[in-house]
Parts: sequence; structure tokens; C-alpha cells
Amino acid sequence: MLNKAGRDIPMNLPCLEGREVYQGEFALATNARRAGRPVRATRPGENKVVASIDEVIEKAGLKDGMSISFHHHFRNGDYVMKLVMERIHEKGIKDLTILSSSLAPCHEFLIDYIKDGTVTAIETSGLRDALGKFLSTNPGVLKRPVVIRSHGGRARAVSCGEAHIDVAFLGVPTCDPRGNATGMMGKAACGALGYAMVDAHFADKTVLITDNLVDYVYPYSIPQTDVDYVVEVEAIGDPAGIASGAIGITKNPVQLKIAELAAEFLDQADIIKEGFSFQLGAGGAPLAVAKFIGQKLKEKEVVGGFGVGGATGVLVGMLEDGLIKAIYDTQTFDTTAAASLHDNPNHIEMSASMYADPWTDCMTNYLDVVFLGATEVDVNFNVNCMTDSNGILMGASGGHSDTAAGAKVTVITCPLIRGRLPMIRENVQTVITPGTSVDVIVTERGLAINPNRQDLIEKFKDSNLPIYTIEELQKMAYDRVGKPQDVEVSDKDEDVVAIVEYRDGSIIDVVRKPLL
Amino acid sequence: MLNKAGRDIPMNLPCLEGREVYQGEFALATNARRAGRPVRATRPGENKVVASIDEVIEKAGLKDGMSISFHHHFRNGDYVMKLVMERIHEKGIKDLTILSSSLAPCHEFLIDYIKDGTVTAIETSGLRDALGKFLSTNPGVLKRPVVIRSHGGRARAVSCGEAHIDVAFLGVPTCDPRGNATGMMGKAACGALGYAMVDAHFADKTVLITDNLVDYVYPYSIPQTDVDYVVEVEAIGDPAGIASGAIGITKNPVQLKIAELAAEFLDQADIIKEGFSFQLGAGGAPLAVAKFIGQKLKEKEVVGGFGVGGATGVLVGMLEDGLIKAIYDTQTFDTTAAASLHDNPNHIEMSASMYADPWTDCMTNYLDVVFLGATEVDVNFNVNCMTDSNGILMGASGGHSDTAAGAKVTVITCPLIRGRLPMIRENVQTVITPGTSVDVIVTERGLAINPNRQDLIEKFKDSNLPIYTIEELQKMAYDRVGKPQDVEVSDKDEDVVAIVEYRDGSIIDVVRKPLL
Repeated sequence: MLNKAGRDIPMNLPCLEGREVYQGEFALATNARRAGRPVRATRPGENKVVASIDEVIEKAGLKDGMSISFHHHFRNGDYVMKLVMERIHEKGIKDLTILSSSLAPCHEFLIDYIKDGTVTAIETSGLRDALGKFLSTNPGVLKRPVVIRSHGGRARAVSCGEAHIDVAFLGVPTCDPRGNATGMMGKAACGALGYAMVDAHFADKTVLITDNLVDYVYPYSIPQTDVDYVVEVEAIGDPAGIASGAIGITKNPVQLKIAELAAEFLDQADIIKEGFSFQLGAGGAPLAVAKFIGQKLKEKEVVGGFGVGGATGVLVGMLEDGLIKAIYDTQTFDTTAAASLHDNPNHIEMSASMYADPWTDCMTNYLDVVFLGATEVDVNFNVNCMTDSNGILMGASGGHSDTAAGAKVTVITCPLIRGRLPMIRENVQTVITPGTSVDVIVTERGLAINPNRQDLIEKFKDSNLPIYTIEELQKMAYDRVGKPQDVEVSDKDEDVVAIVEYRDGSIIDVVRKPLL
Repeated sequence: MLNKAGRDIPMNLPCLEGREVYQGEFALATNARRAGRPVRATRPGENKVVASIDEVIEKAGLKDGMSISFHHHFRNGDYVMKLVMERIHEKGIKDLTILSSSLAPCHEFLIDYIKDGTVTAIETSGLRDALGKFLSTNPGVLKRPVVIRSHGGRARAVSCGEAHIDVAFLGVPTCDPRGNATGMMGKAACGALGYAMVDAHFADKTVLITDNLVDYVYPYSIPQTDVDYVVEVEAIGDPAGIASGAIGITKNPVQLKIAELAAEFLDQADIIKEGFSFQLGAGGAPLAVAKFIGQKLKEKEVVGGFGVGGATGVLVGMLEDGLIKAIYDTQTFDTTAAASLHDNPNHIEMSASMYADPWTDCMTNYLDVVFLGATEVDVNFNVNCMTDSNGILMGASGGHSDTAAGAKVTVITCPLIRGRLPMIRENVQTVITPGTSVDVIVTERGLAINPNRQDLIEKFKDSNLPIYTIEELQKMAYDRVGKPQDVEVSDKDEDVVAIVEYRDGSIIDVVRKPLL
């Protein structure tokens, strides 16, 4: 069935029974209720601290066929999933669904557990490297296709029970014996715990795993009322993999050129003004835009409103310089930002629900502008940030479609050509963000405004900026490197390796096994 | 039907259909789930700030027969309930259930709204003065008896949907346009918002009413994801009625004598030690105990763990002097404590669920000792703090039964005689806290240990303290002022004016109309 993004969704797939296809950003009615986990009464004298992961797996009642969740605040430094999965594997528990907020290269070990039936389903925002390639090329290795969700979509699905979590195993950098936990302190400090907060609140059983057990934790991101058990281990992550030092601004001249053009667009569109709010993706060009925004705020002598994170040192610098009033942060990207979250009261932690859940009052709805990267875009302004030029799962849905739907202006920064491949396609391989959410695509050679935004086109009709139609930009690329070949993929239903949920739970696309 | 507290509960009352009688502190199984409110998607560009209470009543869809909630953090300085009820009354909406965390003398205006059918049911922790007298003596004026709940019992009932809230009208001293709110700042600053936090999270619609609307609020006690509408008004409360200056320690010699004896007991029972945790009621004698605890901690050169509030300046002083490590606070009693909550990171706000909800992991379960007052006690150690010597509703269930059930040692402080009436009765007029939760009753003439606590009786067998049986204490009082007459009450089912829920939702007692 063709959906509103023009994708043909094989609704006869068993995993799509009863599901809706994508019908537009805000088309679906929201008559759901928040899910309610079973209540659990702790008795006086009871101790939540359990001696080992083995013991907590038993106490939590983990059984074949259940769903278990993890978060990705530790990025590629995560030890928790492996610590837990090794013990689960040892116990011979099978047929588990892994519901992780995302998956990093360090989770490659899952391949073995998929092969032996320990893991039979995966739901995630991102998939990379060996695991991405394995799942892209081995349809049927899981009992159903991978489910790809945006951060807001996952918060929604968990909050309303669509993605049910039997047991959440959540690494927390600091925790007290009752389960009050924070990511702001401890040797594995990661800053915000926005994804973990949602899982802890809605999972049937919540297990916290920490390497820093202290008497009292405040402020706590996760309250003891959301926690069933606490386990102390030697180490929950590798600090070097959890957060780099301050993420710097790119020195790549193409990225800088794109950023400069994007900033000029922003300026001429009159978006940079008193109280304006924005989010910058953590990629090269979007982050470089921050510098230009900062300069412009200083020139105009106005103070912006809030920036939304994924917080970085660059954003923190703007807060500390008084250029913006607040940062709302669901996931902290570098150590500078983690320190800021701990020390600066105007650097505000938020749950993934508050960040981007479309079925609540999320901050992405209050964005004036968002800058986002893309793996590729197409002439309908659709964006792919999930599959590579070979059709392999290698990216993440992240907050891309969430912010794009909410922001008043969505700016996609994308090089015209990457590795001799043109980045503006006839049709993107995988639609993560629908073109109707995208207002401007900025490349190093020029920018294109979405024809939906006649107001912007009118505003820029006398601009000195290099403004083209998307087709003109595409032709520039084709003229230089030729028209690219389409990725050939299997058209068999059983070769669908992933389904892509839009943030409201409708199906915006599927990923099919590439015929390499 | 006789319950475990020895009270005869008329289970044939229509309002008790399907309910359980009280069967012991932790007897009932907890197979409930947390309730899930309907999700509500805020769209980009939507503004939650509504111009008036009139408008918000309409937007929230308030209709005849619904349940509306309020909190009592503003105590006798509350303007919010009146502001809302006047507009509701004006609109002619009828048959409402008022679910307030408590009711103060300033809510006397409800009498008129009860008489004209605007309000037909009341559920609360406390009832006082004219409203208490009116409801005690006018059975049938409501469509069902008043429901009295403890703070933990109310958090439980709201959390699991037993007490369903259609619309919560919550006064918040500071709030941003999206609904992030705190009680720590603003002209009506009240400190913690522990009761409001629960209502905001579980109500079908949550309306915040503030007199201090600012751009950003952090830390927030209530997050925007729990809020549907925000209304700004001139004033939400009278600061003088909201919080007094620092509540001082009593100068009443009887109270001081009781406090001294209670502290001596505590010392000899070896409870005051490194890391011990406690709660002190806000009454005269319990608060005076703090001074003795402080002295003892200094003498022993040990540091206590946490104190639980209802926080007062006295408790804050202990925190600031380094005598305890933390305060957990659900409701702040004086301006000194409100300032501390704002400034001291070890003064920790908690929801009423985290405070006392028996169906989660509540802090009351971690108490080593609690000191509580009483209106009267009986020879079975049952405590009444709800009805006066004429059988009139005039007190509050509060956290009495919650803390008593959770604490390792529960100390009741009560004068032997009050106004020429002996305070140890054969049977208390109304059981709020069952005797099985009470370990020691301390009077100015001596103390009695509950025979259930043979361990304590053994420990004190050679003590120099004036230890008696409860019957001996009772006799001392009778010898001085004679045996009191029982309050005569109606035995008709239709003259039940209130039912008293134990914290787990079972029925521990009913209040019958007194035959004055």
C-alpha cells in the first residue's frame, strides 16, 4: 500500500498486521492512554540491592520470549548490555526482544546471540557496522524485521505500551540503594539519562546497574519509585567510549561552506531573534552553524531562548556566554556538556518523552529551527539517514523526524556529492523524515527551498544567496559525477529486513535486503 | 463486618460495594497496575496558556458528575480552590467530587456549594472547623460519605486509578508557559509540591494556576509532559497563610516533658546511631524531640542519615549543622524550610508517592523511627487524629498511618489528660492508625510499650524510665479526672458521614453522626 511519503508498504507482512501506513506528520488521532506498569510494594526491611546480575535476572522473572530494554547513553563505551546478555545466554534464556534506544558498534556481540536464538527480535533507533550489515543481509535470521524508531517515536511507543518492556536493564553512573539515579556523576558519567528515564517509568521491572553506589543521590533523573532492583558491578562502561572531550567544530572546508550558507539563510530568513529556539545535530556542518548563530546574536545584541541537546560543548559555550537562556538536554554528547549539566542550573535535563514524544507536549514542537544532517535526500525533500549507498543499515533515525516535524523551519545540510556519489537522488533509499517536514536543503553549491514553503520562496525572491530548485541542484551533481545507479534490493516480502516506524507509529518505509 | 482493627464496618453501605475491610498493615496483595491517563498531543504552534479560569474549565471539558482535584500545599492561605469553584458554580456545573489532598478552614465556602448540589462528594485527608462540623452533623448532604485517606493512601488510590481525577486544578507558585512548575519560587512559594506532582501525573487533564509565569523553570517538580493548560491569575494564595516563619519548638511544659521522655526512650533503645533515619510530626512534642536527637548525635559524634518532612526549620537546622545527611520533603511547613529546599541540594523534594504510597518503594518504609501526635489513643494502641471528643471531624489522617506502618519504631506522643479528659480510651472514637503499627505511647507521666514488641519490653526491663502498661497509664488518668463518657453516635447506616480508608484502600473505620 502506497503511503503519504510515496513508499509502497507490504502491509501483508505478519508483523504489520493491524498497523497503519504513514498518512502525514500529524494525521493520526491520539486516543491512546499511557501504559501502567504493575505496581510493586517494597516492604519495610526489604533491600533492593541484589548481589549479581545472575540473581537479578532471576528475581526480575526473566523468561523466554520476553522484551528487555537498554539505553545508549554510554554510546560505544557501553559494557552493560554485554554484562547482562552474557549472563542471560549462560542461563539459556531464549527468544528475547532487544528494545534498545540505539545500538553502537560495541554491540556487535549480539550477532552470536541472534544466531543461537537468544535474541529473536530487535527494536532500535540505530544500527551500525557489523551488526547493521549482518541484519541487512540475513533476512529471516530474526523472527520479524528490525523495528526502527525515532527517539520520540520510541518514547511514544514505550509510554503507551505499544513497545512493552518486561525488564529494563539500565546502566546508571551513580545510584543509591533505593534506586535514585543520575548520569551526572560517577566514573561512567554520561550527563543526561533521557532515554533511561522513560524505560524506568514504564517497564514492568526496572533493574539499575551501577558502578557507583552512594548513600543519597540528588537531583535524581530516575526516582526510586520507578526502580525494582539495583546491582553493583565493577564497571558499566569505558569513559573514553562514553563521551569524548569537547566535540570541536569541523575543519572540513565543504562542511564549513555549507554551514556558512545555512547561517546566511537563517539570517536573511529573520529567524535569529530575541528568544528564538533551535537544535543543532551533532554532525560537522550543523555544529558549525552554532558559531554563526552566536556571532549573529552578538551583532544584533539579542539573547536567544533555548537550545535543545544532544548537548555539546559548543552549545554550552553559547549558554555560558549568555547568548541563550537555557539548554534542554536528553542526551549529552561530550564531557564539557556533561559538566555543564551537573553545574549549570539553566542546563536542564529532560526525558526522551519531553524531548520528542509526539503524544505529549514535547520540546521539539517549540523549535524555531533545526539543523540536521542527511546521508542522502531526494527531489521530494525526503531524507535518509539510515541506510548507506549499498542499502545497508548503518545510521540512526535519532531525533531526525521528531525535530523536523516540530520545528518551524527544518534545514537539512548535505554535501552535493560524497565519495563521487550525488547526494540528491530521485528517491532516497529509505525515508526517515518525510519531505513535507523539510523546508530547506543546503549544499556547498547552493540551497533549495521546498516548494511547499511559498512564504520562504517569496521572502528570498530577491536574495543574493545561491538559491536553486532541488532539480537544479541535483543536475549540478549529475553533471559532475553522472547519474548514480539505484541500489538493487530484493522485492520478496520475506526479504524485508527492517520496518521504519514514523514517530506516530505508522509505517513510513521498509528496508529490503540489497542484492549486492 | 469486624475488621482486623476490631471495628464493625457496615459493608452493606452502597459506597463500600466490592471493597475490602482492613486485614492488617501488609495483608492485601498488590496486583494492580498504575493508571494511564489519556495521551494528549500538543501540536507545534499550540499555546497552553489560557486566558482565564472560565476558559480553561471549558477547554478541559469539565462536566456534571466529574471529579476534580486540588492540593493543600497552600494550607490556610489557599485561594485556588475558591477561584476555581466560583467559576464552576457560575457555570452551573453540578454533582462534582472534590478530591483534595486536604482541606483547611479557608475552604469553608464549600458548605454553600454542597448545599446547592455543585459538590456532591468529598475525598480528603483532613477536614476542619465549620466544614468538618457541617459534614459530621449532616449525613446525606453528600451523595456518599466523605472518604478519608492518608497521604500515602491517596497517592496509591490516584496512582492506580481507584481515585480517578478528571481535571486537576493545581496552584503552582512558579511556572513556565509549557507547564514546568515549582513551588520553590514566587510570591506564593510553598516549598515542595509532593501532592501536586501525583495529581499532575495521573489526572486526565491537568490545569496549572499560577501568579508567577516565567520563561523557564528548573528544577521543575511538575514537568510539561504532565500539563494540559496554564492559567495566570493575580494571586494564588496568601503568603502569610501558606507558610509561617520558622515553626518554633514548643514552650508548653507538658509537651517538653513528653519530648524529653520520648528522647530518653530513643536513646536507651539505641536507635540514635550513625545513619539512622526519622520523621517528626509538626506538632509540639514531636518537634521538641528534634532538639534532643541533635544533642545526642553531637554527644555520640555520629551523623544521622535522613529526616523526612513535612520539613520545618528545626529539621533544616539539623541538616545545616551536619547532624543529618539529607531531608526528603513532600510538603514544606515553614519559610525556613522552603528556603532550604531551594538552596540546599541535600534537601530533596519527593512526590507523595515516593513519600508514602504503600504500592511503590516509599521512604516511610526506610524510617528507623517516627514520632507522631494523637488526639487520643486506646488500650489497644490504636490512634485517632481525625475526630474530636464530640465525634466531630476536625483533624487529618495525614501521613500518620503511613509512617507508623513503615517505621521500625513508632512513638506516639500524647498528653495523659487534655482539657480534663483522659486521652487513653477503651476504644478510640475513630481508628486512623491501627495499634499493631504503634510501638510506644509516651505521656508526661510515663510511657507504655506495645506488648507486641517483646523485644523492646525485654530491652527496657531494667530501665530507669517510668514504664507502665497502657492500662496502668489509663488508670492514672482515670484516677485524676474519672472515666470519660463515650461519645454517643447514631447506629443507622444512613448516618455514616465518613469512611476511613487504610492506606492500602481497605476500610479501617467509619465515622458516624454524633448524637449531640
